[in-house]
Amino acid sequence: MTQVLVQRTADAALRTRAASVIPGGMYGHMNAAGLPEAYPQFMTRGEGSRVWDADGNEYLDFMCGWGPIVLGRKDPVVEAAVRAQLELGDLLDGPSPVMVDLAELLVELVPHADWAMLAKNGTDATTACVSIARASTGRRKVLVATGAYHGAIPWCTPRPGGVLPEDRAHLGYFDYNDVASLEAAVAEAGDDLAGIIVSPVRQELARDQEMATVEFARAIRTVCDRTGAVMILDDVRCGFRLDLGGSWEPLGVQPDLAAWSKAIANGYSLAAITGRDGLRSAASSIYVTGSFWYSAVSMAASMATLTQLRDTDALARMAASGQRLRDGLAAQSAAHGFVTTQTGPVQMPLLRFADDDAGSTLARTWTNEAVKRGVYLHPVHNWFLSAAHTSDDIDLALERTDDAFAELARLARQG
Amino acid sequence: MTQVLVQRTADAALRTRAASVIPGGMYGHMNAAGLPEAYPQFMTRGEGSRVWDADGNEYLDFMCGWGPIVLGRKDPVVEAAVRAQLELGDLLDGPSPVMVDLAELLVELVPHADWAMLAKNGTDATTACVSIARASTGRRKVLVATGAYHGAIPWCTPRPGGVLPEDRAHLGYFDYNDVASLEAAVAEAGDDLAGIIVSPVRQELARDQEMATVEFARAIRTVCDRTGAVMILDDVRCGFRLDLGGSWEPLGVQPDLAAWSKAIANGYSLAAITGRDGLRSAASSIYVTGSFWYSAVSMAASMATLTQLRDTDALARMAASGQRLRDGLAAQSAAHGFVTTQTGPVQMPLLRFADDDAGSTLARTWTNEAVKRGVYLHPVHNWFLSAAHTSDDIDLALERTDDAFAELARLARQG
Repeated sequence: MTQVLVQRTADAALRTRAASVIPGGMYGHMNAAGLPEAYPQFMTRGEGSRVWDADGNEYLDFMCGWGPIVLGRKDPVVEAAVRAQLELGDLLDGPSPVMVDLAELLVELVPHADWAMLAKNGTDATTACVSIARASTGRRKVLVATGAYHGAIPWCTPRPGGVLPEDRAHLGYFDYNDVASLEAAVAEAGDDLAGIIVSPVRQELARDQEMATVEFARAIRTVCDRTGAVMILDDVRCGFRLDLGGSWEPLGVQPDLAAWSKAIANGYSLAAITGRDGLRSAASSIYVTGSFWYSAVSMAASMATLTQLRDTDALARMAASGQRLRDGLAAQSAAHGFVTTQTGPVQMPLLRFADDDAGSTLARTWTNEAVKRGVYLHPVHNWFLSAAHTSDDIDLALERTDDAFAELARLARQG
Repeated sequence: MTQVLVQRTADAALRTRAASVIPGGMYGHMNAAGLPEAYPQFMTRGEGSRVWDADGNEYLDFMCGWGPIVLGRKDPVVEAAVRAQLELGDLLDGPSPVMVDLAELLVELVPHADWAMLAKNGTDATTACVSIARASTGRRKVLVATGAYHGAIPWCTPRPGGVLPEDRAHLGYFDYNDVASLEAAVAEAGDDLAGIIVSPVRQELARDQEMATVEFARAIRTVCDRTGAVMILDDVRCGFRLDLGGSWEPLGVQPDLAAWSKAIANGYSLAAITGRDGLRSAASSIYVTGSFWYSAVSMAASMATLTQLRDTDALARMAASGQRLRDGLAAQSAAHGFVTTQTGPVQMPLLRFADDDAGSTLARTWTNEAVKRGVYLHPVHNWFLSAAHTSDDIDLALERTDDAFAELARLARQG
């Protein structure tokens, strides 16, 4: 049986210190307070497909920093580009030439893109897209899918604290993959429809992921063409992991604007907005900026990331590893007598138990046992693979998840 | 006479390329389109108090990346901390221990701070402060000074493109340093006053800077105490440059919440929110996060920056250099027959011409001549000094600005 990790001394000490100087001990998506008990809060290092927690425990990493790590941690080409740019300088008094290189590369890679803007957070990008849509059309209403995540400021954050009704006064809602509900929301917006923002995949917590149907994607495109509204693809989470041209390229549907972040620079902080020529003047009419938006290091990292994704078989290898993991987990769960679903792109997997309760107890117990055995998954949020995950990594992870299933079965038998 | 720079071949070529792939050729505060003609748009490297443009021209840098560079570019201690953290890893699946170290350091340095949260953009921090104030009080109204800059998303961005009236439905306005107008705005907000957000110095474009009066700062504190509203100091621009405890420490006035960014990590992308115990639960009730908010490298850079600011005479040396520059410029402008004002903290100077027109023609012509001679100032935005500016640097800059004044006088005589 694979080794079961238990030591959490350093992590516990850090949590105690954090509890006194950080509200709630931690916040945001990396808050481990809601995770099963064996999950560490603090991590100290990463390499390739591995991360280590503050107690020195090693994990096969299937969260990839919640998405940004796409080539693997400390990718040598990206790290060399980062160090070379650090030698020159990061934040100067104007942008570095690499900003132009990167904007050109985005325009080359992304079919709808005639231009690009760069920012820091995914929320910066989605928010700018909404502003550009409103500035361009002179209209107010923006439609979003119920339950979709588009960022964490008042117009979009998933928790109500600090949010006023006015922050969302001109949002309308439709159900993902439901063309009739989309049409109803469009009708309700009437001649005030500025745009529709949509994620390429439905990815809500503790819920099977849902790939967009081609009918749904086309319906959004058609509605926007018909009404003059701006179609915004929020490719922050999926972008540069599934298809370099955008996550709806396989469906043959192109947006007018897209928001990008996460995988764009293999972990370095960067976001981007791409758009069509028709939105160029609206994009330059809005005022968006940030103190670090012109920092060159993350742009150099992005150049090294995107060119490798373009010029190597990294995406294909990632997909193959994802498929190998999915096949292995499907066989294991069946062998241990569990009915599971595995949904979403294989590069962004999620495993759920068909008979799980509302609290996802089975998923939490199973991922907890996996974490104890050195496999870092998530009980309710989609996971992420990187190009650094080899078939040996997948096989080792499967060896450990098999033990986790066995332990889950044993616990289930105990009642 | 000092050398006059003219070569702009590489910059021109980059601007041409940028014009086709970046809306408007550039955007945000580093857009050089509005600057006088001799300003470069693109820069390639920096070192200490110097930056170089894409054509290899060297400048004495008085913008410091628009504030973030506080110790000087490529400070060896900060760079060593950055490289050490890069070796370990930047963005893992949980925060690194350095996040706790940094939150503890902020609590140590900042008198009002019982806790800290970390983010990426100044706007992230100001927006979170507003949300915390609303979540804490259950009220809606937030007062801001007319003309103040608090960020670049719809609730605060200075340009109207993409902004809806609802984004600012619950803002109220007062005039900076005007206690009567503050009281009037407070009265108008009535029992719905959630908070007041204020910058430590009035710093608007093309306008003399104005230090806050102690009466004004105290009035805000008193109003907040009286009404239960949250006092928010937006220390993004001034923070960690004037006083490590916060820019109103010399006035003896402490806020309930503060927003920080820019100088916090000597150029690495980071922002922070600090607050009092009474706001801890409101701070953990709102959902704010970002993909890169837990990246360790900029936190390590911040530790190295703030401990050096705490343990060395860096702030005092920066103030002395600022005073030397101010004294020199005052003597020069008088000698050349110009009436000028120099306002704001000496570490964040701004020189204006008393007889300038609405387009700041004199300031633009003078700074243009300074840039040609290798001194990078700004015609209408406050400048920034760093601890890397030596008295020799200041003397060299003054030698060049003297030539720029002479050229301005010559051009003025020509009419």
